[in-house]
This record gives sequence, structure tokens and C-alpha cells, in this order.
Amino acid sequence: MSQTEVNYGNRQDHLAMAMKAANIEAMALNAGPSLTYLSGLHFHLSERPVVGLFTPHLPPVIILPELEAGKLSNLPYQVESFTYGEDPDTWQASFRDGVLAAEFSDLRVGVEPRRLRVLELTFLENVDAGMKFVSGEACLAEIRMQKDEAEQAAMQKAVNTAQDALEATLPVIKPGITERELAAELMVGLLRGGSESQVPFAPIVASGPNSANPHAFPSDRRLERGDQLIIDWGANIGGYFSDLTRTFAIGEPQDEMNLIAQIVLQANEAAREKAGPGIPAQDVDRAARQVIEDAGFGEFFIHRTGHGLGMEGHEHPYIREGNLLPLAPGMTFTIEPGIYLPNKGGVRIEDDVVVTNDGILSFSDMPRALRTLGD
Amino acid sequence: MSQTEVNYGNRQDHLAMAMKAANIEAMALNAGPSLTYLSGLHFHLSERPVVGLFTPHLPPVIILPELEAGKLSNLPYQVESFTYGEDPDTWQASFRDGVLAAEFSDLRVGVEPRRLRVLELTFLENVDAGMKFVSGEACLAEIRMQKDEAEQAAMQKAVNTAQDALEATLPVIKPGITERELAAELMVGLLRGGSESQVPFAPIVASGPNSANPHAFPSDRRLERGDQLIIDWGANIGGYFSDLTRTFAIGEPQDEMNLIAQIVLQANEAAREKAGPGIPAQDVDRAARQVIEDAGFGEFFIHRTGHGLGMEGHEHPYIREGNLLPLAPGMTFTIEPGIYLPNKGGVRIEDDVVVTNDGILSFSDMPRALRTLGD
Repeated sequence: MSQTEVNYGNRQDHLAMAMKAANIEAMALNAGPSLTYLSGLHFHLSERPVVGLFTPHLPPVIILPELEAGKLSNLPYQVESFTYGEDPDTWQASFRDGVLAAEFSDLRVGVEPRRLRVLELTFLENVDAGMKFVSGEACLAEIRMQKDEAEQAAMQKAVNTAQDALEATLPVIKPGITERELAAELMVGLLRGGSESQVPFAPIVASGPNSANPHAFPSDRRLERGDQLIIDWGANIGGYFSDLTRTFAIGEPQDEMNLIAQIVLQANEAAREKAGPGIPAQDVDRAARQVIEDAGFGEFFIHRTGHGLGMEGHEHPYIREGNLLPLAPGMTFTIEPGIYLPNKGGVRIEDDVVVTNDGILSFSDMPRALRTLGD
Repeated sequence: MSQTEVNYGNRQDHLAMAMKAANIEAMALNAGPSLTYLSGLHFHLSERPVVGLFTPHLPPVIILPELEAGKLSNLPYQVESFTYGEDPDTWQASFRDGVLAAEFSDLRVGVEPRRLRVLELTFLENVDAGMKFVSGEACLAEIRMQKDEAEQAAMQKAVNTAQDALEATLPVIKPGITERELAAELMVGLLRGGSESQVPFAPIVASGPNSANPHAFPSDRRLERGDQLIIDWGANIGGYFSDLTRTFAIGEPQDEMNLIAQIVLQANEAAREKAGPGIPAQDVDRAARQVIEDAGFGEFFIHRTGHGLGMEGHEHPYIREGNLLPLAPGMTFTIEPGIYLPNKGGVRIEDDVVVTNDGILSFSDMPRALRTLGD
């Protein structure tokens, strides 16, 4: 989505309302998706800190390097900016000016614990203006979790792009290709299909025993006949992500792998059937987990059933035991049960879904059953 | 480099020596290149915190999610690990156990301000063991700045891969292609050439007036005859990065752009001639800046001359005014002067170099002068 299609003033007003309910008086956000969501501005996270300070009823304050200042021209809303040069000894002064301009003194200031670094925190704390820092994560989740139509359309496109890229890559999946080569070919397909270069994560290609590790990095292992193959990949369209997983067999699948693939498929279906408006997030996890436990593989489903997805690869809502949050229309998340048998292999089937008024819609529709390739 | 080629025990010993000199008694590192450098372990930075605790004379302590624990098997050194499950309410207990096992109580603990997040800091602080957190950045820079032969070889390969990818992409650079399409083709070339999918940064392709913004993101702007074109790109080989920039003219260059391209080339040459062992980093910046100032364009060279490069896209040593650090053999950094004329266009020429016993070696040797394309 381009800056001009989004009303950032509205988003900032929504934040102010959520902050009021949470007793948070201001918000300090460093370079990252929440700052982009609220401002339309993109910054790399680097050694040069960028912070946006949001105080209700004041224009946002942005502290940033001089060489990024060009990004502030032509913004569709008012902003007050404080820039600094290349000598880190001078940066504290800009933070001081910014914090005072945002009238932060003695306020309860929300931050994102998963994003804000000791770097930015220290510059803010050193202003010594009596601020108390608290987690603003719940406020930001509240305004970002339910995606509007344009956001959902971007996610659908990110899913389509990912699915098309994998379909186009299937012909090269044969015994002899390495995991790393396969991951590169899939990335090529994503880019050719229109994904931004900054994909949510580098594709995971895990074959044979490596597929028993849910977060494996692609290695130089060559695919062999009889392997399991897990591919976990996603695209980025306009800053919105997809995150899918499908599992394949290279040649005839082993009996045990065939069995767990069927169980995981049933778990994925059970979770998709359970999910809908008003359903607590943990019930979706329980629906998938029950299937796997009933089949006797509970101890090998070693992660939650899913996570929110949008401008971040992992965001709220988390689909896990203990999360009582009721799902609501527009929430987008993954459903990705898996079974991992150490030293043998694993199966994971991951879809991206959005909550509708009466259930969910799965953005992804690529065949979910174990597919045999390379025969 | 594979885990087995590196002596991580030696690296941990070097850290202990640097810490002693800096009066730092322990080190807490989250997922990132320093943790990887010291442990050989790769973790994604995510909502699940991973922290390595290094106390001299004790085995490293790693606090990590259960689903990542498989990465600790077959390590070539001893490690003590504390894992946690999917419920964030249980994570604090693992941090407590880990901090106590690492005997952190009342110690001065070094952290990386640019890497450690409020997330990990809060879990550590909540153990309430009387630790005092200080910046360990200088210690880590000290042990990581001077690259050994294997590291330099990886960087040379990352430069070669990047140069080959751009050469292979040149034929598609013609009026009509968009910046985004060109960036995607270049990424394809990087991946086909063997780069890891996680490149140091998504290629910057900035054409026409966009080239006046040093940190532009590729847009849907189509290249036009008469454009300047800045391409800033890099590869990742075995976790080591390249970071290069070359500037092109689409068709016959404008006179003013031709002029600034010649000046920037001279500035790049002056900096490369100046750099060598014992030379303060700021003198390299001054050498480039002097050329540009003498030509009357000083106000348009709006950033430092370079930055360290290795396992991070930006690291020590920073090549900027005020940095008196004497360069030493094995240090690797960029030399990248530029001139940016607002609303017109810019020129940047960036090389990756390593300090030798009597000067520098440039890993990059692609032609630096303004090249005309698409005619």
C-alpha cells in the first residue's frame, strides 16, 4: 500500500484511544513495523537509532539521522523532526530535544520490548525527564491485529505469490539437489513473482533427518530418495507477509512418515474448523493438539499451533495454550501443526487464515496432503 | 565456515581477555552475530528470546526455546542450557536458572546496546541478582574487528559473488525497467551465484532523482534515458557479507553528473591510498572528504566515508571524523564516498577493503568510473 492510500492520522487516533484505555500516556517506537504502520515511514534498523515519539494531541516527533531526513518530505500529516550527524557523541542532544518537544517529562511511556533496543532506551533514559517505561505491546497489537480490506488484499497477494513460486519450483525438486540450492531457486521464484526482496524469512528447506528440526537452516545436504522434505516459505507484498509450509516425499514415502502426514493434515483441518469469531485462541491450538495427542504423537508436536501474521512474521494473536484472547473478524494468523520424530523426519502443514464473520477464510489453498516428488 | 573449522574455545578465551582489560566480568548476548561468532550457533531474532551468558572459567550458558534445543547437540565445546516452552509466563524461570548457573550475581555484565532488546534486558533484570549492565560493544569489536584468513576468504568470495551477479544483470538495465524489477533480477543473480538468502540488505536501486537519497528503497519508477542509477548491493557467503556500490548513466550522462562522478572517483581513490595500518580511521574519511570539499561539493557528501563489514552489514571500525582508532591488519571496512544533489541525482562508489601489513587490499575491483548502459 502506498502512503497516500492510508489515513495515518486515523491510525494515530486509534493508538491514542488504545493508550488511554491502557493508562499509557505516550509511545516511543524505534524503526520497525509499528512505526511504519503509524507513520508510513520505512527505516532500516541500524546503528543509527530512529525513534518516533507519539503523544496524543501533539504531532509525532521523529528523531533520525540527517541522511534519512529526505523521507519526511511530502508526508500527508504534520511531524516534528530532530536530526543528528555522523558523530555518536552528538546524538544524545537530539534525543533530548525530541523528548522535550514531545512533552514526555514524567509520562508513562509505552515501548515495544521485542523491538526497542538498549541503544534507543539508553538515549531516552539519559534525557532524565522522569519517564516511566512500560510495555506498549498490547496497545499496538490491539490496533494492528484486525486487518482492514487493503491489508487483507495484500496478504492474499503475498500468499498467491508464495504458492505460485513454489509450484514453479517443484520441477527442480529431485534427488541430488541440495537444500541450499532449492532454497535459492524458491527465492528466485518469489522475487520473479513480485515479492519484495525483504522476505519475512529466508525459506526453510529441511530434508531427511533435518526435517525433524522445525527451525532448520538450509544446508548442503543433497536430497535422497525416501526423504521427507519440509518447505517453509513466504513472500512480502507491500510490506505484508505470507508464511506457508508444505511437506513432500522424495520418491515413495516411508510408512511412518505417511502416517504422521495424515495425522498432521487432520490436525490442520481441525484447527481451521475450530477457528472463528469469539473463539479463544487457545481453543484453536487445542483442536489441533487433540488430534495429534489422540494419535499418540503428542510429545512430538513441540510448538504452538500458530502465530499472528501481517507486517511481522510473528505477531499477535499467538495460537497457543493459555491465550484466552477471543478471535475477531480481520485477525490474521497461521495454522501450522507439526510432528517431528528425532533423527527420522517431520511433517508440518501451515496455512495463513483470516477470521471472518462466521469462521475463517484460508488465504492458502495449495494441496495440503503429502505429495510425492522427484519420481 | 562450518562449525568444525573454527575453534570457539579460543574465541571465548579472547573475549575473556578483552573483558578483563575492560573491567567487564560477564557478557550477555542475544541472538545475533556476536553470539554466532562465539558459539557457532545461529538463531533467528524473534519473540522467543535466546541469550548466551559468558562468564570466564565457566562453560557458556544458553537460554533458549525448547524447539531450538536440537541446535546444541554435537557442539565441539561444553555448554549448559536452559530451555523454555511456549507459554511466556514460564520464561522468567528459565532466565533465573540460567543467570544463577552463569554465576552472574553482582557482576558487571556487558551487553550489546545495538542488539539486546528490552525483551531480554527485562528478563535478565527481573532475576534481581544485583547485576550492573554496561556496554560490551568495544570488547566485542576488539575481538571481531581483525578478520582471520578464513574470514577474509569468505568476504572475498562474497565480493566476487556480488560483482558477478551485477555483471550478469547489466544487460537488463535499460529504459523502461522499474527499480523494483531490477533489484529482483540482481537478487536472483546473487542467489544463483551462491549467496545465502539472508543478504546483508535488500539491494538499493535508486534512479534519477531517487539517487539523491542514499538510503532509497527500490520503487516502481521506470528507468529513463538521462538517468543516474545507483546500485548498492551485497552477498552473504557463510555468514560474511559484501557491500558494494556502483553508479551508472542510462544513455549519455548529464554534464553535472559526469563531473560529480569524477570527483567521487577521486575521493574513493584518495581514501584507498590513505588507508593502512596505524592510520587513524578519521584520516581515511578526511582524505575522501578533502577531495569533495576542494571541488566545492562538500555540503553534498552527507555521510561518513565507510563502516566496518564482516558478519554485520555495519560494524566497527567506522570511517568517520572523530574516530581516532588506528587501523590494523585484518580490519575490513567499506570506502564509499558520495555526492547527492537534491532533486537531481547522486553518485556513490563503494569498495570493500582489508588492511594489510603495508596498506589495504580492495576485495572489489569492478570498474569504478561512471558506466553508460542501455544505449
